[in-house]
Amino acid sequence: MSRPDPFLVPPTDADLDAAAGRIAPHAVRTPVVRSDALDALAGARLWFKCENLQRGGAFKFRGACNAVMSLDDAEAARGVVTQSSGNHGIAVATAARLRGIPATVVVPGNAPRIKREQIAAAGATIVDSGYVQAERDAVFAAERARTGASPIHPFNDARVIAGQCTATAELLAERPGLDVVITPVSGGGLLSGAALAARRHARAHGRAIDVVGAEPEGARDAFDSLAGGVRITGRTPHTLCDGLRAELGPMTFALLREHGVRIALADDPAIIAAMRLCWDHLKLVIEPSCAVPLAIVLAAAREGRADYAGRAVGIVLSGGNVDLDRLPWQA
Amino acid sequence: MSRPDPFLVPPTDADLDAAAGRIAPHAVRTPVVRSDALDALAGARLWFKCENLQRGGAFKFRGACNAVMSLDDAEAARGVVTQSSGNHGIAVATAARLRGIPATVVVPGNAPRIKREQIAAAGATIVDSGYVQAERDAVFAAERARTGASPIHPFNDARVIAGQCTATAELLAERPGLDVVITPVSGGGLLSGAALAARRHARAHGRAIDVVGAEPEGARDAFDSLAGGVRITGRTPHTLCDGLRAELGPMTFALLREHGVRIALADDPAIIAAMRLCWDHLKLVIEPSCAVPLAIVLAAAREGRADYAGRAVGIVLSGGNVDLDRLPWQA
Repeated sequence: MSRPDPFLVPPTDADLDAAAGRIAPHAVRTPVVRSDALDALAGARLWFKCENLQRGGAFKFRGACNAVMSLDDAEAARGVVTQSSGNHGIAVATAARLRGIPATVVVPGNAPRIKREQIAAAGATIVDSGYVQAERDAVFAAERARTGASPIHPFNDARVIAGQCTATAELLAERPGLDVVITPVSGGGLLSGAALAARRHARAHGRAIDVVGAEPEGARDAFDSLAGGVRITGRTPHTLCDGLRAELGPMTFALLREHGVRIALADDPAIIAAMRLCWDHLKLVIEPSCAVPLAIVLAAAREGRADYAGRAVGIVLSGGNVDLDRLPWQA
Repeated sequence: MSRPDPFLVPPTDADLDAAAGRIAPHAVRTPVVRSDALDALAGARLWFKCENLQRGGAFKFRGACNAVMSLDDAEAARGVVTQSSGNHGIAVATAARLRGIPATVVVPGNAPRIKREQIAAAGATIVDSGYVQAERDAVFAAERARTGASPIHPFNDARVIAGQCTATAELLAERPGLDVVITPVSGGGLLSGAALAARRHARAHGRAIDVVGAEPEGARDAFDSLAGGVRITGRTPHTLCDGLRAELGPMTFALLREHGVRIALADDPAIIAAMRLCWDHLKLVIEPSCAVPLAIVLAAAREGRADYAGRAVGIVLSGGNVDLDRLPWQA
């Protein structure tokens, strides 16, 4: 049986189930936490799925693990190759090590030191590229040709989306009464997975769940793409959220449109404030990218908007890989 | 039926069971986490019970909640009073608010700002006292006489010890194969509770569990007290572990002796290094006091001592209330 091209065909329900089974022996079933203080600030009931406590410190392990473990043995033997500014690279390196196969990660020059170190620590070969996407793509293509390795895309990849879907599926299994699920959005893998999980849950329980993507103002391509109905590419993002500088891919753009996913925006100062609130009240180390959903919920409460008021809101805390020597509230 | 004096008679097995039932509706059943990187550094399998994710940010809520909820209605109506440099005060204030009764907390002048703020935020009345224990005791006695409130001792109190016991009992229920349990030691409530939980577990499973108290070098009264067989009081502690500056009480000293609990020491630089490793690898915000057990395990590994090598070690992460503007690795 020939498999559909994972870069062109989105995951089916069977793919989602297979992903959950495939990653179960390797991924952490992360806890869901809450805080009286944050609920009071938000005027809502917030539940946080702690993917910062996931293997490799981010949800990315789910998708990478599903992709690596779904290769057949002949493919796997040639290794895997990907490009990533950080968490996806750590995740692919970790999953490849678990399977005992080589991994190559093309890393842009502006990747944070801690993420670069973790990719190397997981045993992957790091290949440096420039900042610009076209330059990164060229280096990636050359590495792929040189090694014959299987490419794993950070988000425009059905195997990766199916893996990321498990984060929201677990959250909904633990908190089936959620009204809203919010995740950060960059390339859209986590958010597409959330939309798929929410649709299945909504069908099974006969009730709607809103799915919201949280994006920094300075990297608002998803907001503008969905608003205009045309996928925007080629912008230069300006945000300290180093994990949210990618743009939607064709598959994630189509999935987010199909599922009616809404995008909301927050500016960097609000994101930093929300990040610090998570550290103070949840006692969790999270990275700036991870704080965008909370920043959006708190802004709605401050401005008296009814978006989340009194509702049960699930937030996927996407990751915790941050340089402890350079905290953003210490200028 | 007259109840035994909780300041004189240690908890029975029935008291431990009652405590678990009493706090269950209010306390978080905190997750247990681990890290490949920390296991590699330790040469052991480490399991961390996340009491920094407990209500109020520390295990202290368990004991305070059990004490507050075990008062009869007439006692409760007169409120509760305690003395604390921080986490116990937050815990008593929180538990009293849940029961709807007044709380007074006598706070020494050197208590961290964040802890003082949280006591006030939980609705307790704060009464300032000096640094010296005798001075604190005098202010406490005056407040008790003035209010007629029930005193809740931070550790030398059977109700509090029974509550703290539930942390280790939950850890052992989730990881029944642990060989060692390590907790920080200050007044000895958490550690006495760990000893009680470990003895019950050992009896039920027919295997021994070592219980170790982790103490800063600069506050080594428990180490010296157990070594010499005489409870030491009146020293001035010198450690940045603001949660570990108390001395054993008569009840906790007797319990630790009876259970053959061992004390191990770590110096402040090793504690700060271990604290940072927890932030980096567990993605958890923990306070310095909370890092002493890991500091001790890592020192043993570095020095080639066999204390924990290859063993399954449970560590109670005691709390996460730290001032994010003053991190100890930023001198």
